[in-house]
Amino acid sequence: MNFNKEDILLSHKRIASWIHNTPVLTSGSINQISGADLFFKCENFQKIGAFKMRGALNAVLSTSKENSQKGFVTHSSGNHAQAVALSSKIANTKAYIVMPKGAPKIKIKAVKGYGAEVTLCENNERSRTDTCEKIINKTGANFIHPYDNDKVILGQSTCSKELYDEIEKLDYVIPPVGGGGLASGTILSTFFFSKSTKVILAEPEKANDAFISFNSKKLIPVSKPDTIADGLKTSLSEKTFDIIMEGTDEIITVSEEEIINAMRMIWERLKVVCEPSCSLPLAAVLKNKEKFKNKRVGLILTGGNVDLNNLPF
Amino acid sequence: MNFNKEDILLSHKRIASWIHNTPVLTSGSINQISGADLFFKCENFQKIGAFKMRGALNAVLSTSKENSQKGFVTHSSGNHAQAVALSSKIANTKAYIVMPKGAPKIKIKAVKGYGAEVTLCENNERSRTDTCEKIINKTGANFIHPYDNDKVILGQSTCSKELYDEIEKLDYVIPPVGGGGLASGTILSTFFFSKSTKVILAEPEKANDAFISFNSKKLIPVSKPDTIADGLKTSLSEKTFDIIMEGTDEIITVSEEEIINAMRMIWERLKVVCEPSCSLPLAAVLKNKEKFKNKRVGLILTGGNVDLNNLPF
Repeated sequence: MNFNKEDILLSHKRIASWIHNTPVLTSGSINQISGADLFFKCENFQKIGAFKMRGALNAVLSTSKENSQKGFVTHSSGNHAQAVALSSKIANTKAYIVMPKGAPKIKIKAVKGYGAEVTLCENNERSRTDTCEKIINKTGANFIHPYDNDKVILGQSTCSKELYDEIEKLDYVIPPVGGGGLASGTILSTFFFSKSTKVILAEPEKANDAFISFNSKKLIPVSKPDTIADGLKTSLSEKTFDIIMEGTDEIITVSEEEIINAMRMIWERLKVVCEPSCSLPLAAVLKNKEKFKNKRVGLILTGGNVDLNNLPF
Repeated sequence: MNFNKEDILLSHKRIASWIHNTPVLTSGSINQISGADLFFKCENFQKIGAFKMRGALNAVLSTSKENSQKGFVTHSSGNHAQAVALSSKIANTKAYIVMPKGAPKIKIKAVKGYGAEVTLCENNERSRTDTCEKIINKTGANFIHPYDNDKVILGQSTCSKELYDEIEKLDYVIPPVGGGGLASGTILSTFFFSKSTKVILAEPEKANDAFISFNSKKLIPVSKPDTIADGLKTSLSEKTFDIIMEGTDEIITVSEEEIINAMRMIWERLKVVCEPSCSLPLAAVLKNKEKFKNKRVGLILTGGNVDLNNLPF
């Protein structure tokens, strides 16, 4: 690993006063249904409603004062956009967020609400990159990739670090996997703070690049992912793939129906508003009851930014 | 007051290992909108999904072993039914729950799921009472009233006791008021553990018996209450009225629309699944921004048992 224990501790110290140490919830009835002891780390209660705040803030606050004054830029239509916007506000500097033209108005509004400048681009990789580059050339702003960034990964690692501080002797920890930032961070924390815990990743069948890459030991991006878990459509980067290869025990994929059923169970029984992407870890447990029987399992509920007018149930 | 500090501490000790010390959540965006510092005590994460577990369990565990063996009986179609059912299971004895014929099947199923025996009755006071009496005559079971019961009130008092243990210097605490069990318990805890905090009750305009009774200093039950906050349709008893007269600073009533708007805000911004009854305290704050400006306010989110197929928004 290119990281050490001290990196994680320093990252946590850097961001701790700005983020929530989110609660870990349990549900007797979900335990009964699953046959396992489940501990839900509720990052839907995190600032901006998702764990992404940890990574973005760690990246922003790690930047030198001189560079920081030039502002920060990223492209995202999701939680990372809000995270960079709020983190820049905390650092008293500017955020430039590139979003695709089709992005939901409510998300654009949320990002602007944190004082960020939004630039719309075409909905393709080329236009996103070009638009970001133009902004960087003009302003000198610092680009923060949503996951292919050491400081972002270290920020995300603080989530499971907090989980291990609170809950001992977990047999497994399960984050969902999209681009691999949270997955990588979880692997780091587990390596340094809970070595006997196995890391399992949960991924949509319909966006299964991590599953394919992990099992073929070769980085293979997914093309045209089409899943309700919109936070998990991204593919791994070289950096996150390397960490995942090193520290993952297994990747479990789940169907769209399994995602929706698990999501509903979390709303009904854990009483928590979560995004579809959140439900993957529980879906993975429910699909593999024998494996997790009587095990102590930590599940990362990644975020709660969901449109109440557009629920899948 | 007919209660003392020791009663509350003993009640908490009695039930603590069976209940959740529920988390207190905050939301930067709700604080911004309201202009106040709000602390949400999340009893929707409590066992059976509502604070009612505290009172019922305290009543059950306070009963002598000999009497306890005869079982417990109550009439309720709501959270108190599940609370008595699970509490009886914990005490390793029987629960007899009387529910009206029209009660939602899902609620009947939940109560049976805790091992209780359900007896259906007509949907009127007379039939409820008669059915309970028959069961008591036959079995000798102990009746647990949902709020007109000292041990139930003491159980509910542990909720704000925990809030005061965690959050200091609250200017106000706001529970919703229905029958007055939680309101009374909150008044007791405030009197003994946070004397400088003022207790404000929040009540639906359409079930405003506490408001009318408090302001006319005379117990006046409400007839035909018709509010979406179905947990708050009940009227005060002599016992809860007396405590409320003694320890309440003000009762604020809110409209159905205000209830629904506050509920939606809690779902969207606090990321918490709550019942309509839960939203009253926030609705009361939003209706009186001047009063609560820059104040530290504790809000009791009472429960999260809601039908996802029948949301008001």
